[in-house]
Amino acid sequence: MAQLPSIPKGTRDFGPLEMAKRNYIFDTIREVFKLFGFQQIETPAMENLSTLLGKYGEEGDKLLFRILNSGDFFHGIDPSELRVENSSSLSNKISEKGLRYDLTVPFARFVVQHRDQITFPFRRFQIQPVWRADRPQKGRYREFYQCDADIIGSNSLLNEAELIQIIDLVFQKLGIEITIKINNRKVLAGIAEYIGYPGKLTDITIAIDKIDKIGKEKVVEELISKDIPSHAIEKLTPIFELEGTFDKKYSSLISLLKSSETGMKGLDEINQLFRLVNELKVQSYCELDLTLARGLNYYTGAIFEVKANGVDMGSISGGGRYDNLTGVFGMEGVSGVGISFGADRIYDVLSIKDLFPNNNISGTQVLFLNLGVKEQEYCLLLLNQLRKSGVCSEIYPDQSKFKKQIEYANKRQIPYVVIVGEDEMAKGMVSVKNMNSGIQELISGELLVSFFNK
Amino acid sequence: MAQLPSIPKGTRDFGPLEMAKRNYIFDTIREVFKLFGFQQIETPAMENLSTLLGKYGEEGDKLLFRILNSGDFFHGIDPSELRVENSSSLSNKISEKGLRYDLTVPFARFVVQHRDQITFPFRRFQIQPVWRADRPQKGRYREFYQCDADIIGSNSLLNEAELIQIIDLVFQKLGIEITIKINNRKVLAGIAEYIGYPGKLTDITIAIDKIDKIGKEKVVEELISKDIPSHAIEKLTPIFELEGTFDKKYSSLISLLKSSETGMKGLDEINQLFRLVNELKVQSYCELDLTLARGLNYYTGAIFEVKANGVDMGSISGGGRYDNLTGVFGMEGVSGVGISFGADRIYDVLSIKDLFPNNNISGTQVLFLNLGVKEQEYCLLLLNQLRKSGVCSEIYPDQSKFKKQIEYANKRQIPYVVIVGEDEMAKGMVSVKNMNSGIQELISGELLVSFFNK
Repeated sequence: MAQLPSIPKGTRDFGPLEMAKRNYIFDTIREVFKLFGFQQIETPAMENLSTLLGKYGEEGDKLLFRILNSGDFFHGIDPSELRVENSSSLSNKISEKGLRYDLTVPFARFVVQHRDQITFPFRRFQIQPVWRADRPQKGRYREFYQCDADIIGSNSLLNEAELIQIIDLVFQKLGIEITIKINNRKVLAGIAEYIGYPGKLTDITIAIDKIDKIGKEKVVEELISKDIPSHAIEKLTPIFELEGTFDKKYSSLISLLKSSETGMKGLDEINQLFRLVNELKVQSYCELDLTLARGLNYYTGAIFEVKANGVDMGSISGGGRYDNLTGVFGMEGVSGVGISFGADRIYDVLSIKDLFPNNNISGTQVLFLNLGVKEQEYCLLLLNQLRKSGVCSEIYPDQSKFKKQIEYANKRQIPYVVIVGEDEMAKGMVSVKNMNSGIQELISGELLVSFFNK
Repeated sequence: MAQLPSIPKGTRDFGPLEMAKRNYIFDTIREVFKLFGFQQIETPAMENLSTLLGKYGEEGDKLLFRILNSGDFFHGIDPSELRVENSSSLSNKISEKGLRYDLTVPFARFVVQHRDQITFPFRRFQIQPVWRADRPQKGRYREFYQCDADIIGSNSLLNEAELIQIIDLVFQKLGIEITIKINNRKVLAGIAEYIGYPGKLTDITIAIDKIDKIGKEKVVEELISKDIPSHAIEKLTPIFELEGTFDKKYSSLISLLKSSETGMKGLDEINQLFRLVNELKVQSYCELDLTLARGLNYYTGAIFEVKANGVDMGSISGGGRYDNLTGVFGMEGVSGVGISFGADRIYDVLSIKDLFPNNNISGTQVLFLNLGVKEQEYCLLLLNQLRKSGVCSEIYPDQSKFKKQIEYANKRQIPYVVIVGEDEMAKGMVSVKNMNSGIQELISGELLVSFFNK
């Protein structure tokens, strides 16, 4: 045979078993989103490049997958401009569309474009793939799903609390024990003021964000390289080393940040949020983590991140509040708060901890063997009844050798096989074989439906 | 405000209402596929162009959306080749990937690539978007979903019959009355032999395929233009005008095609298929339609197409048997049979006939108004209980004016509003307002869960 066909690097095929597992994750998340009144939207895979460019920084622009214009894509281009060294400047002329890079920018575009049809506060969720021309590596793909929920057009902290409740419930349902780390960008701003370098908030945030990955010493080095003197950095250390309950950390911070209006506002928000989270009876451990920064993102208030307990892995969910989702498309004043679930990492946690449910995965519950023309006719009637009662079932389509059909059931991991031969037909019975235990029972054909619906 | 952002022509945003309706269709189809033992797979949006090119004819190649290579896409191109008139020859050098054009070619590629992991007969389904750079027009989009199910690696006609059963059940569940038209490519080959032009089978098939769109006269004109003389065309007419029951058509054909081995084999297959369809108690009307040809496709046996009764619209589902799915990727002998559902057309039929269920669409069932801090606290406990019992519900996040909150419920078409003011709190009661009837009831807070679960 010729060389095997393949797929582009960084992309994946999902076979039946992986699909069943992935759907288990997506269905769980979707169900909880809906329970909380979120409404689903979908946007096209392709967006105009004018929508995407400049939204993800210079690096992001380079990671966009661009669609070559259809037909004669060189049409209208000045021949003198068409030179091998001009690929960068020409790329915007020969392509006008790109693949979605995340769900946030398309959502912002959606809100502005359809703002007259949207009822605010708008609780939307979206579960779709995104594409990034990143260098593929372990756990990083060029096509992957994002699962986002946002509430926009409301400043109430209840929204933050409900999103934390959603995180709590999703991972409860999946059986994953988590810690929810919570912080607030305004508190970080207050801390920057407290150490005397309010203008260095971004540098401080970026450095702190890496503390889990590179450790405290490297963070200090980075801060020094950003011209923050060591006496200021020394003031940071005790803050990041605060320990104990929320109340203890909170009262320490109150006295440290009292001169920062922003910092005090942030602390008030955090305090309210923790009270609401208690009121809502969130079961997962919620921790005020002052080293949580959420990188270069556009967050302006609460930020949160979720770690799976006892698994050495990055965050499996995260989010926060932002002040200005749609300003870049000319619509000001739309604030909101959102979360995102990392389906691929959740998949890995469920695999590592062996938490996927068995019954959800197998699909077909019953296979009828096909042992002859008359037998097939007899089985089809029973198969119809079984399906009508909602039991996923099938009949082997060919009258192949018994062994081959049993092998099929084994490979497919079908838990029950129904065997009908001349003997069974004569008696109006069927043999039901439990493929796990190997036990075979003879039961009346009439009782088959109730057998599988017990 | 600046100009509204927009999306590429031929693509669509789906808002909450459309999404709920589309999910109703996809969920129904998916549920039936699973009931019949089909297993879901997904393939990447992007395929290597070597996988896609040459599979859809010359026209299809032009309609592929190509992904521009990342980075310096002109790298390695001879400067002398880089000329505006060379866009066509350069397109394969500056792009190596394309967006999926249908689900069949990626499925064939999947089967060859993963053949060692697949258990045959393989019953797979796949529901994913595809992209075509077609000229957008009413009902034709550049991004649209396909819903395909195929059984490969089995020659049994039971597979055809089960696919017809699936069609029957899907449309029963959706409440759409349909006619299933059935034909067989071998019978068409037999007819070509019967009129004395077996070599003209493709021309005859292509012409006949248009009979519904352009009428009989134009079909005759086309056949003449393909050098089929009128005495041969005259022999066709009575065949295509055969009327009456299946048995009547069948016995006429048996005597006409008796000298064609292929034709007789096709008739035998059709006869067996109709018998199986009866055995399986398919409720929709199944018609032997000798003018059904299914265009230029790769079908070799049974073909079928579904029309919605009483709606002037093209087919809403179709499929057939093919002999060689994977030969083009070097793996011979994989035959199979498949069907595809046209989600966009099904959506239109359900809209025209007003068949979308109401309760499925609205999402949130209950909105708690938010009339104060104490009231919110009171409501959150009830809201938690309601959600725990599975009722999709939400609380208005801000303590906005009563009228604004009611307006939100109305716009979102939320059927019930729960109102808790000081009076209700003092009594341990809540007011439940039915937003359709306007009727408001005072009930005990403790009975709220059972009220909405009755």
